[in-house]
Amino acid sequence: MRAEIIAIGSELLSPDRVDTNSLYLTKKLNEAGFEVRLKSVIGDRSDDIEILLRDALRRSRMIVACGGLGPTEDDLTRTAAARALRRRLYVDAAILEGLRRRFAQRGIRMAAINERQAEVIEGAEILENDVGSAPGMWIPEGEAFLVLLPGPPRELQAMFESHVQPRIAALGAERRLEMKSLGVHGLTESEVDSRVAPIYREYPDIQTTILAAMGIVILRMQRWLARGEEANDLAELACRMEEELGAFVFTTAGESLAEVVGRLLRQSGQRLSIAESCTAGLVGAAISSVPGSSDYFQGGVLCYSNELKTILCGVPAEMLESHGAVSAEVAERLASGVRALTRSDVGLSVTGIAGPGGGSSQKPVGLVYVGLADASRCLHRHRRFPGDRTTVRQLTVNYALGLLRRFLMTEDSIP
Amino acid sequence: MRAEIIAIGSELLSPDRVDTNSLYLTKKLNEAGFEVRLKSVIGDRSDDIEILLRDALRRSRMIVACGGLGPTEDDLTRTAAARALRRRLYVDAAILEGLRRRFAQRGIRMAAINERQAEVIEGAEILENDVGSAPGMWIPEGEAFLVLLPGPPRELQAMFESHVQPRIAALGAERRLEMKSLGVHGLTESEVDSRVAPIYREYPDIQTTILAAMGIVILRMQRWLARGEEANDLAELACRMEEELGAFVFTTAGESLAEVVGRLLRQSGQRLSIAESCTAGLVGAAISSVPGSSDYFQGGVLCYSNELKTILCGVPAEMLESHGAVSAEVAERLASGVRALTRSDVGLSVTGIAGPGGGSSQKPVGLVYVGLADASRCLHRHRRFPGDRTTVRQLTVNYALGLLRRFLMTEDSIP
Repeated sequence: MRAEIIAIGSELLSPDRVDTNSLYLTKKLNEAGFEVRLKSVIGDRSDDIEILLRDALRRSRMIVACGGLGPTEDDLTRTAAARALRRRLYVDAAILEGLRRRFAQRGIRMAAINERQAEVIEGAEILENDVGSAPGMWIPEGEAFLVLLPGPPRELQAMFESHVQPRIAALGAERRLEMKSLGVHGLTESEVDSRVAPIYREYPDIQTTILAAMGIVILRMQRWLARGEEANDLAELACRMEEELGAFVFTTAGESLAEVVGRLLRQSGQRLSIAESCTAGLVGAAISSVPGSSDYFQGGVLCYSNELKTILCGVPAEMLESHGAVSAEVAERLASGVRALTRSDVGLSVTGIAGPGGGSSQKPVGLVYVGLADASRCLHRHRRFPGDRTTVRQLTVNYALGLLRRFLMTEDSIP
Repeated sequence: MRAEIIAIGSELLSPDRVDTNSLYLTKKLNEAGFEVRLKSVIGDRSDDIEILLRDALRRSRMIVACGGLGPTEDDLTRTAAARALRRRLYVDAAILEGLRRRFAQRGIRMAAINERQAEVIEGAEILENDVGSAPGMWIPEGEAFLVLLPGPPRELQAMFESHVQPRIAALGAERRLEMKSLGVHGLTESEVDSRVAPIYREYPDIQTTILAAMGIVILRMQRWLARGEEANDLAELACRMEEELGAFVFTTAGESLAEVVGRLLRQSGQRLSIAESCTAGLVGAAISSVPGSSDYFQGGVLCYSNELKTILCGVPAEMLESHGAVSAEVAERLASGVRALTRSDVGLSVTGIAGPGGGSSQKPVGLVYVGLADASRCLHRHRRFPGDRTTVRQLTVNYALGLLRRFLMTEDSIP
C-alpha cells in the first residue's frame, strides 16, 4: 500500500538539520506492508502545510505527518489539516481536562495557549500521548488515512507503537517487505557490482541496491511478498553473491566491522590494543562502540606526536628520523610496541597523513600505514586514500578494521 | 524567492539513508536569497517523478532536483522531467562525443546504455560535469527554473559552484538571508530559553531558533533582508543574548567546542594530553578533527581496562580497588598521570559507565567523572547523563571539552 511521510517544522528546512523521524517511520511502515513512496519536509506555514496535505490525500493511501502539534504559534498542523480536510476543529473536553491535570501536577497554572492542544479535527480518533502533552490523531478520509503525530522522537515512537501500529496491522496489509544484506570490505563499489551483477540480473523480482560509503559496500536485496508467500529466491540470491565475493563479505547479519572484529577476538580469546596516530581515537571509538567490548579491548595509546611514539611504543628516534613517522617500519614498531606495552595478544597501529597540511610529493596527503602484530607475526599494509581530512580518517578506520579482521581469520600473512 | 529541493533515488527512501545533498543546497540557495520552502525525496519511478516535478513547477520559482542522471535503467530523471515539461529529448552530439572520449581514455568501449547520458531536454542549457560523466541541465520554464543535478555529492557540489551559482546570482535575488549564531555549553535548552526569550521577543522581525543536541545549545537568529538593507538589530540581539549568557557562550563564530579549546591551547602555548576510559577515543577524535591540532595535542592513552590505568597512568591498584575505576580519585589520578607520562602541560581524563551493562545502584549507567590537571591544579567534576551508550559517550565528550574550555580560561578552580 502506498504511503508517504511528511515532516513539519521550519527548523528541518535549515542547512544543518535533517528529519530523522522518517527513518523510524519508514522501517515501521515497511514492516507493516506499506511502501513509502514520498517523503517531504515542510516549514511552519499554514498554507504550505494545507496544500501539501491536500496533494498527499489525493495520491497516497497512508499519510503520516509529524510535528507542529505543540502549543505555540508555530504549531499549525491541526488547523492546516482541518482546512485540507474541510472539517471543523473542536475542543475536546477530556483532553483539556487531562492537560489541566498535567499542569496542576507540576504546580503550574496552564496558560491559555495550551488549550490549542485540546483541539481535535471532526471525525478523528484521538491518539493518546503517554510521554508528552500533545495528542495525535488518526483520521480516515475516504479510502485514505491521515495520521498526525508529535515531532519529538520519543513521543512519536511511543505513540506509533501503542496506537498506530495496532491500527495499521488491522488494515491487513496484503504485502510485506522481505530483506537481506551483505556487508563487503576490501573491494570497490564497481568491483563488487561487476562481480555480482551477472547474478542478481537473474532475479528480476528482487530489487538489489549497492550502497558504498567509506570503503564499505552494502549489498541490499529486497522483495515485496504477498501474504503467506516465502522468498526462497532471496536467500538463494544472497548465498550466491556471498559465494562469489568470498572472504570480502564480512557480514550477512547487518553487523558493523567493529562488531565482526569483536566477535573474532572473543571467539579466539585474544585481547587487542591499539596505537593510533592520524586517527587519534577514531579506531578506539569504533571498537568500543560495541557494548561489552571491554571483554577483548584493552585500550592503547594515541601517539599523535612523535615524542609519544617513542615514549610509549618504543619507536627509536632514529627510526622516526630516517624513515619518517608515516612509514612501514614505524607502523610495525607501533603495533608490536603497543602490544608489549599493554601486554595484549594483538597490536594494531595506524599512522598516516590526514591533511590538509603535512603532505609531500613522496608522502602525499592520504597515505596511511596500518601495522599488525601478534606473538608470531608483525606486518604492515598501506594505502593512499582520496578526500579531505574527515574522509581520509574515516576510510583509515575501516581499512584498519578490515585488515584486523583478515589478520584474525588466518595464521599466516594476511591475504 | 521560493525554492524547493527534490532528491531522487529509491535508496533515499530506505530506513537507513537520509538525503544530505539538500543541506548543502539549502545553504547555497539561502545565501543567494532563495527561501527553501519544501524538500522532497522520491524513488526511481518515472510516474512519481513526473507528477512531483509538475506539482513543483506549479508552486515554486526555483526547483533543484538531484539524482537519477546516471546511465542505468534506474536513472529516470531526464525522461520524467521531459514529460513533466511536455518537451522533447534529443541526443546532444557534443556530449556524446565527450562521453566516448572519456571511455576511450580509460581504454574501455562505451556501452550503448551510456548514450542516455547524452540526452538533453529541449530548451535546456547544459551544465558540464567536471568531475563525473552525467551532465546537468538548467531549464527555464515560464517564470520558473528547473535545475537537474547529479546525485553524487562531489559532482553535485562542483557543478553547483561552477555552473548554477553564477546563474542564480544573475537572477538578482531581491533578498538575502542574514544569520548569526551563538554556541552555548553548560546550560540546558530550557535554561537558555528562559534567559533569552525576554530578549528575542523584543525583535519580532528576527526568527530566533534554539537547537539542542548532546549538551550543546545553538541559538540561531536569522532575518531576510532587502537588497542594501543592513541588519543592525541582528548584531544587537546577538550581543544582548551573549551578554545575558556570559561565559556559557563558547562561540559567536560557528566554531565547535574542539576548535575553541584548540584556540585557547594555542594562545597559551600549552600542550594537551588525554586519558580516556569510557569514551575510548572519542575525545581524542574530536580534538584531532581540527586541522593543525598536532600543534597543541600530543595524544594520550586509551585506558579502557583497569590494567592500563595502572600501567600507563600510575593509578594504584588499591585505589581502583577501594574507590572503583569510576571515581573522583581515579579521574584526578588519570589526569595528572597522563600529564606526567606524556610530559604535557594539561592533562584531561574521562572515566564513566557508558552502559548498557556495568551500572550499579551506587554507580548507575551514565555516571561520568572528568579530571583536569596542570602544573598547579588537579580537580574533577562529575555528571550523570541519561540515554543509551552512544548518547552517554557523546554527551561525555562535550562535557569534557566544555570543562577543559573553562579550565583553560581561568587560573583558579573552574567556575
